[in-house]
Amino acid sequence: MSKIAVLGTGSWGTALASVLADNQVDVTMWSHREAAAVEINDQHRNQKYLPDVELPTNLKATASMATVLRDIDILVLAVPTKAIREVIASINTQLDHPVVVVHVSKGIEPETNLRISEIITDAMTPSLVAAVVALSGPSHAEEVCRRMPTTLTAASTDESAAKLVQNAFSNLNLRVYTHHDIIGTEIGGALKNIIALGAGISDGVGNGDNAKAALITRGMREIIRLGEAVGAEEETFSGLTGIGDLIVTCTSQHSRNWQTGYRLGKGETLTEVLASVGMIVEGVRTTEAVYLWAKKLQISMPITEAIYGILYDEKSPTVAVDELMGRQKKKRILS
Amino acid sequence: MSKIAVLGTGSWGTALASVLADNQVDVTMWSHREAAAVEINDQHRNQKYLPDVELPTNLKATASMATVLRDIDILVLAVPTKAIREVIASINTQLDHPVVVVHVSKGIEPETNLRISEIITDAMTPSLVAAVVALSGPSHAEEVCRRMPTTLTAASTDESAAKLVQNAFSNLNLRVYTHHDIIGTEIGGALKNIIALGAGISDGVGNGDNAKAALITRGMREIIRLGEAVGAEEETFSGLTGIGDLIVTCTSQHSRNWQTGYRLGKGETLTEVLASVGMIVEGVRTTEAVYLWAKKLQISMPITEAIYGILYDEKSPTVAVDELMGRQKKKRILS
Repeated sequence: MSKIAVLGTGSWGTALASVLADNQVDVTMWSHREAAAVEINDQHRNQKYLPDVELPTNLKATASMATVLRDIDILVLAVPTKAIREVIASINTQLDHPVVVVHVSKGIEPETNLRISEIITDAMTPSLVAAVVALSGPSHAEEVCRRMPTTLTAASTDESAAKLVQNAFSNLNLRVYTHHDIIGTEIGGALKNIIALGAGISDGVGNGDNAKAALITRGMREIIRLGEAVGAEEETFSGLTGIGDLIVTCTSQHSRNWQTGYRLGKGETLTEVLASVGMIVEGVRTTEAVYLWAKKLQISMPITEAIYGILYDEKSPTVAVDELMGRQKKKRILS
Repeated sequence: MSKIAVLGTGSWGTALASVLADNQVDVTMWSHREAAAVEINDQHRNQKYLPDVELPTNLKATASMATVLRDIDILVLAVPTKAIREVIASINTQLDHPVVVVHVSKGIEPETNLRISEIITDAMTPSLVAAVVALSGPSHAEEVCRRMPTTLTAASTDESAAKLVQNAFSNLNLRVYTHHDIIGTEIGGALKNIIALGAGISDGVGNGDNAKAALITRGMREIIRLGEAVGAEEETFSGLTGIGDLIVTCTSQHSRNWQTGYRLGKGETLTEVLASVGMIVEGVRTTEAVYLWAKKLQISMPITEAIYGILYDEKSPTVAVDELMGRQKKKRILS
């Protein structure tokens, strides 16, 4: 039986740790905030991220990195993309044996254009990394906490590591499948947040389901274009971590990226929205990273470009969406 | 400038005829009910199918088949799949010149397993058919009537006919693209209604967005399996008439097929639901047709099979959905 540490007490890390606790796995969460750990241990709650959820009573947490890493087989990184290097720096000084590293974040590092598994390989002391697995798929944390049926994919070039993760997380509510294409899995997971911002913007400016479906369809195609250019397999994008995750993020009002886009579409500024969300909206940073990456690779990504314009260039959401839908003559993109 | 007849005054026929009227095309609708034609002509309403919509004042209708067919270039068939042969029999006796036949229905004929364009070729006097075009895509009629941005595909093996249709319908709100793969277009359009029933059932039994996204993803794959077996191109399914239409039908509560599934999931019987809907729910008949077709072709379609069981074999929706999500050991489908 594996011993597992989950680093990060955001909604997704908490949901996955709850699954492990349900499975009677020896799991401990780590938070950089002592108060968050105490709340989980004493009240079995995570008020900030999952306000209405009762956590399993056997789920425990600590703010001590040394404690959480002791004797573990699997390390689950559930921190925002921008915090990963800092957390790994701390792991490097306190972990003393190789582990399977699972990440559940969805982003691309700006400037380096590294996927999360590449950041891990780049930053973590090599002797500490037995294998890297990306765990991804269509999954709102709230539903996982409520034990509603959910499917995920454990992707790794190391099949036995993917199976280890599959075994730890699978139960009757959560089905985990394994896949070898970690590149496609990570690209699909990261880039769908850009399209979710776009879906929210489309809804926010008053367009309907017809327009949103067109946007999602075209969005998938531009994700595939970039993915194939960087070594992903096209077929991966037709699976759970591709179109599956894209659909759930674009059509559900639970989604933080959709919500951010929706409020931008309604006329709020990015600064206003981010100030009140109070959590990381991965798609915002991913849009910037991918916009620049696509330019460098000379890949056409009109939706990403339009959203970049809205986020960073004060482009009007209405004008941008009209252009994407071919309602303005300037560009005819949806051909 | 084309002269066009739209046969059928359901919601979709009315929406498309309204677009043509907006485009100042010479268009007339035909209804088998005199009262429906009068309502459109005098009140500019279609109370039964589009209760809240004001129709263009230049949109006219008639109950005379001879009148509506006179001198037309394009014939739009907007009747339910099961009424098409009867309407064509009437056309055969009253049309006296070849026309481009556009159909906007989404079904498969039981027993023959013919797509709509094949029914047309089979039933219509050959000298009357200049070309057949399928017009399809992610499109709620209500949104089209409200002039909200929408994209469609005009699919035909006859490129000039597809372009004729594109030109007649395109405007700043409705963008029409052309495509050569009419097989893939028709299979995608027909079979998405089965998956929409399934999405509704999943929501109805109380599952969430995670489960629905998994179902849609797997549903797309089984649509592609059947499509490829009957000559469709895989790529068509990643476009507007494939995944685009599937998304809009599965995630929007406007969808009649979703609604039917939802009520089945809540415990109503099919007879109860159909009695109160009062409109054709294409997916119900399509499920039966495709279930038998897949058996004949020996193609694995577990979702279609499960929905067939619910519709026609008194299978419990909860049990069927649990099986699909791998929650019951009997079958492990989502592997």
